Amino acid sequence: MKLQVTQENFHKALSLTSRVANSKNTLPILGNVLLECLDGVLKITATNLDIGIVCRVNAKILSPGSITMPARLTQDFIASLPSGTINLETDDNKIKISSGSYSSTINGIIADEFPVMPQVQAKSAWKISEKDCKKALSQVAFAASNDDSRPVLTGVNFQTHEGSLYVAATDSYRLAEKSLGKTSDEIALLVPVAAMQDLLKLLGDGSGDVEVLCDDQQVLFTAGDAQLVTRLIDGKYPDYKRLLPSQFEHTATLSRAEALNITKVSSLFARESAGSVVIDFDKDSQKVVIHSVASQLGENTSSSDAVVSESGSITLNSRYLLEGLSAFGSDEITIGFNGKTDPCVLMSADDATYLHVVMPLRS
Amino acid sequence: MKLQVTQENFHKALSLTSRVANSKNTLPILGNVLLECLDGVLKITATNLDIGIVCRVNAKILSPGSITMPARLTQDFIASLPSGTINLETDDNKIKISSGSYSSTINGIIADEFPVMPQVQAKSAWKISEKDCKKALSQVAFAASNDDSRPVLTGVNFQTHEGSLYVAATDSYRLAEKSLGKTSDEIALLVPVAAMQDLLKLLGDGSGDVEVLCDDQQVLFTAGDAQLVTRLIDGKYPDYKRLLPSQFEHTATLSRAEALNITKVSSLFARESAGSVVIDFDKDSQKVVIHSVASQLGENTSSSDAVVSESGSITLNSRYLLEGLSAFGSDEITIGFNGKTDPCVLMSADDATYLHVVMPLRS
Repeated sequence: MKLQVTQENFHKALSLTSRVANSKNTLPILGNVLLECLDGVLKITATNLDIGIVCRVNAKILSPGSITMPARLTQDFIASLPSGTINLETDDNKIKISSGSYSSTINGIIADEFPVMPQVQAKSAWKISEKDCKKALSQVAFAASNDDSRPVLTGVNFQTHEGSLYVAATDSYRLAEKSLGKTSDEIALLVPVAAMQDLLKLLGDGSGDVEVLCDDQQVLFTAGDAQLVTRLIDGKYPDYKRLLPSQFEHTATLSRAEALNITKVSSLFARESAGSVVIDFDKDSQKVVIHSVASQLGENTSSSDAVVSESGSITLNSRYLLEGLSAFGSDEITIGFNGKTDPCVLMSADDATYLHVVMPLRS
Repeated sequence: MKLQVTQENFHKALSLTSRVANSKNTLPILGNVLLECLDGVLKITATNLDIGIVCRVNAKILSPGSITMPARLTQDFIASLPSGTINLETDDNKIKISSGSYSSTINGIIADEFPVMPQVQAKSAWKISEKDCKKALSQVAFAASNDDSRPVLTGVNFQTHEGSLYVAATDSYRLAEKSLGKTSDEIALLVPVAAMQDLLKLLGDGSGDVEVLCDDQQVLFTAGDAQLVTRLIDGKYPDYKRLLPSQFEHTATLSRAEALNITKVSSLFARESAGSVVIDFDKDSQKVVIHSVASQLGENTSSSDAVVSESGSITLNSRYLLEGLSAFGSDEITIGFNGKTDPCVLMSADDATYLHVVMPLRS
């Protein structure tokens, strides 16, 4: 195997793929990336057996072949090289890499030992805009659970409902949902959140599409030159749509920056009470007031002007409230709830396809 | 106690002082900062019993008094407030803090329990430019040891030698020394490096002076509105001047950026060999070549053009070399050494008051 590739292309492809390689795995080869030279293309693959990522970069192939290389060392080395052409050449299981006055020999492992990437049978295929997919995952994925005792909650759910596609995640304490608009496909896909965090890093803001190909067991996402394949989570996603209130007795609309700041200040005094803060809507003064108490350290009251429909009070976890508020891109935020034990919903007229729900704490 | 102070001033003073307060200390009051209202001045003090920091800020004192407050909570809270005037008022051991729509009550501890800051007897007093002191500490302090088994090496040494003041630190593997120029004072001061790291954060780039006042046990640094007091280290600092070579058999002068880059690349392959890299000066090709070997992973050779006086080879720890190269502010660097086991010296014509010495490894 012998080829030339630019430092920029090789570096970018290595940084996208090598994050799933892990040298601490019991199978040493999973700490390596697989390099394959095809017609004018260098294909780079890494996998942790749950998630596989493939990137293709243009290269001048002088002699075809394949090899695997230690992911971390290769990435760190290529990142340190100056921009320009890099020469790679194998000699048995060694790879010589040179660029200008830099020259290294890295010990590889033969490609035959690298696990074969699973083939996805095209039982269902559809596409979404790359930009929309990126935005949706960034607004939704953080709400998924990392507790393996309820596997379905560790997934991001793609599902059609009344002709529209929704992406959602919940850890049962809060829920984030993004609508991706009308679709004629019938979609129901529960993907591990770890894979979606990796997909997020593969996606750009370009005008391209993400192609999705899936069977009953796994799904393949293709965006430009990059591909990600992962297993699906088996199980039925909670029917959260049923729980979303459509009308609110109490609503307050206020500046999102103000809401973030008063919540942040209040959370400082909520460390002793597991983040618990009390939110009061006051119709008379048209204010939202947040109150928190730390029995040892003191207490805080912060307020912001708001448009309040009806006075009321609810107790929330300040971290969930902060993360929810941060996920919006809008200037204004509307907070709505009914009873003290009913879901509290964050929404915005400027970002109407996104909903964030926080379950109240007992006050 | 009742006062008004601007958020900017209060926030800055808290961030400078509260870093030495520690709520995990067995004495709870050491997690607090002491606030004292004097004539038109709010004085803020924090200490960990080794190091004490005092900041004075202008304030509108409506009623004098003093109290202590939890350092971390107070700092986080003040940092989150909008800029503008903050009102503080004590009510027994509680402090009410309000600013616009933010209002908090923080539980304090009475000031009487706060340890009294040690008074320094003025046995010796001198001053140095704040800007020079900051530069010197930033170039020197990182070379001190953090191993308490040889206490003198955990200090930064201020010492006059033939009428000039030198600041130095060493962990016995490398040494950094800055000359601060001629002085008529006779100075010999060994200060704990932790205190010098804190002093570094107090210093600005202004045209003021740092006043130094010391007795046999402790030293007080005053820079503008901030003061730091610390104990001195007892013991005799190694007579390192004796070990500094004045002439070099082998020297190479090269771009500092190139030297940093080839060392960084080489260090990637030196992880298995405890950072060991071999540096070759080649007179014929006028190059500096760095070589490192990782038996498991591979090997690397990187080179840079240089002006070489005489061919030679030395084995160094790549981390010490990187940290030494990084401490210079110059474009060019000269590396000089004599035998394979003699100290290797980094120096620069553009930064002639600074020397960095790295002891070689056995090759």
